Amino acid sequence: MNDTIKSIATIMDDLDGILLFPHVNADGDAIGSCTALCLALRSLGKSAYIMMKEPIPKNLDFLDFGCITDNASVLDEVQLSLMLDCNGLNRIPGREAEWERGRLKGCIDHHATTSKDIRYDFKRIEPKAAATGEIIYRLIKDLGAEITLDIANCIFTAITTDTGNFQHTNTTSRSHEIAGHLYKVEGFNSKTISALIYDRRSKEALQMESAVLSDLEFFAGGKLAVGRVTQKILTDYGCSMDEADGIIQRMMSIDGVEGACLFKETDENNVRASLRGRSYVNMAKAAAVFGGGGHTLAAGCSFHKSLKEASDLLIPVLIDAVNVRH
Amino acid sequence: MNDTIKSIATIMDDLDGILLFPHVNADGDAIGSCTALCLALRSLGKSAYIMMKEPIPKNLDFLDFGCITDNASVLDEVQLSLMLDCNGLNRIPGREAEWERGRLKGCIDHHATTSKDIRYDFKRIEPKAAATGEIIYRLIKDLGAEITLDIANCIFTAITTDTGNFQHTNTTSRSHEIAGHLYKVEGFNSKTISALIYDRRSKEALQMESAVLSDLEFFAGGKLAVGRVTQKILTDYGCSMDEADGIIQRMMSIDGVEGACLFKETDENNVRASLRGRSYVNMAKAAAVFGGGGHTLAAGCSFHKSLKEASDLLIPVLIDAVNVRH
Repeated sequence: MNDTIKSIATIMDDLDGILLFPHVNADGDAIGSCTALCLALRSLGKSAYIMMKEPIPKNLDFLDFGCITDNASVLDEVQLSLMLDCNGLNRIPGREAEWERGRLKGCIDHHATTSKDIRYDFKRIEPKAAATGEIIYRLIKDLGAEITLDIANCIFTAITTDTGNFQHTNTTSRSHEIAGHLYKVEGFNSKTISALIYDRRSKEALQMESAVLSDLEFFAGGKLAVGRVTQKILTDYGCSMDEADGIIQRMMSIDGVEGACLFKETDENNVRASLRGRSYVNMAKAAAVFGGGGHTLAAGCSFHKSLKEASDLLIPVLIDAVNVRH
Repeated sequence: MNDTIKSIATIMDDLDGILLFPHVNADGDAIGSCTALCLALRSLGKSAYIMMKEPIPKNLDFLDFGCITDNASVLDEVQLSLMLDCNGLNRIPGREAEWERGRLKGCIDHHATTSKDIRYDFKRIEPKAAATGEIIYRLIKDLGAEITLDIANCIFTAITTDTGNFQHTNTTSRSHEIAGHLYKVEGFNSKTISALIYDRRSKEALQMESAVLSDLEFFAGGKLAVGRVTQKILTDYGCSMDEADGIIQRMMSIDGVEGACLFKETDENNVRASLRGRSYVNMAKAAAVFGGGGHTLAAGCSFHKSLKEASDLLIPVLIDAVNVRH
């Protein structure tokens, strides 16, 4: 059963010492949601922190308002541990001990898969919300905190990144309604935020991407596109693997491509494959063959093998997957 | 003086035989706005056509609902010639005679530059509208026509293309408000439309783009990026110039780039330059030096010169432009 946002606001109103937990590999929605709520709680005079052990991704560094800590002892007493944009201990690896410090446990998320490894004192899971940031926006309103410019920037980041800039199928009327409200916040400018998120790529990253895209392979009559980010390419252009993030989306922009696979060579014996589908292909199923997982149209798996061996294993499975029309 | 949308709706209510004129090189906003209004007028029992002599761009072909004609005689009597998303005869070259057929002349646009070569019987220019589609949405409502799925798709195309998917600085609360309404239309799905607009590029186009991006030049300490789409590159990859459309946006994603210039070689004696700015550079002013124009952050100009000559003329002006911080 979902708690209402109003009832969650009422519970939180009485609490102090709040630790927020974004998922591992925190993205724009996870960090945007956590930061927005943390700033709102602080504006209400509460102690709140985001418990996170990885560094904030470079393109989201403008959301670093001193909310993030890697040490839960920054709070004497943790009255609430609150998971945002995820649910289940497997989504906060390495932070289980900090999670346990919370007297109460809560969860606010928009992912449909619910884990049963935690008994939450309250939870709200809205699979129809395009981003957890949409739920947090309403919670902040119900908490009675002001939507400041910093908070507006957090919420915009959460929504725009999780909706693929309002294009993905998860976008709803409410996504736009909330975004529309943000423009009414004094000083808000979507372009400023958008440029920070998207327009700070290095020349080298763009050139590395161009090199990978110039060298795609196509299978199944063009329905499957396969790209490879090798260690050699990264070295040639002086890039790191996280700079390859946008490539698979570009592969999916090709006419007739139903599925895309981007191999990322971690080292000579380890490869990760990112998989995307357009409409009917089940990439989660293909990934599961090799112990991976994800959503139907966005999945991934890893191989303790060479790039060549991983390709030889995965590509035939993907050809079958794009050839089977459901 | 701007006429109100209500008064324009009242005037149009009494008219039949309406020719709509999008600007030359019609884009998503021009075609989306014209098609939305044409469908709405037809649903009210009026004869209406879009007067256009170029073919519809391939990525917008889903907006072809039989509204477009290249022959104004399709209407016995033209009671209204209406320019949409442009104003001034120079924006409808080759269609001046058809324009003159309208007993009344009207104009609905969001471009701030107003031409004085036409006396309009009514006009509405809203520089703060992110897209002409926003004005047309309201006009259709005031005309009392239903926002059908086809019309919703037209309006979404107009707004999402002209706002850079709700990221550009022209995006407003109202852009989102209107988009939010579209999701309430039965069957509306932004992803369907978005995939049609953006995700039907040929492999060859992606590879051509990668080739251009691999070969950028940088000036002014990296503040100016210059790319070139030559006839040779187009021939090598079997592409047409309109497939180069997304390149300049990718150039603007590079960290530190304040201005981007993409030269498009039409033939050995003709070059068009597309110009984009990030924050302070005035690209309209730079374009105006060579008889071009546009917005501060998105402009263009043409040269009846070789690519080399055009580069030699324009690049120094652009270096000055990015070096002058306002």
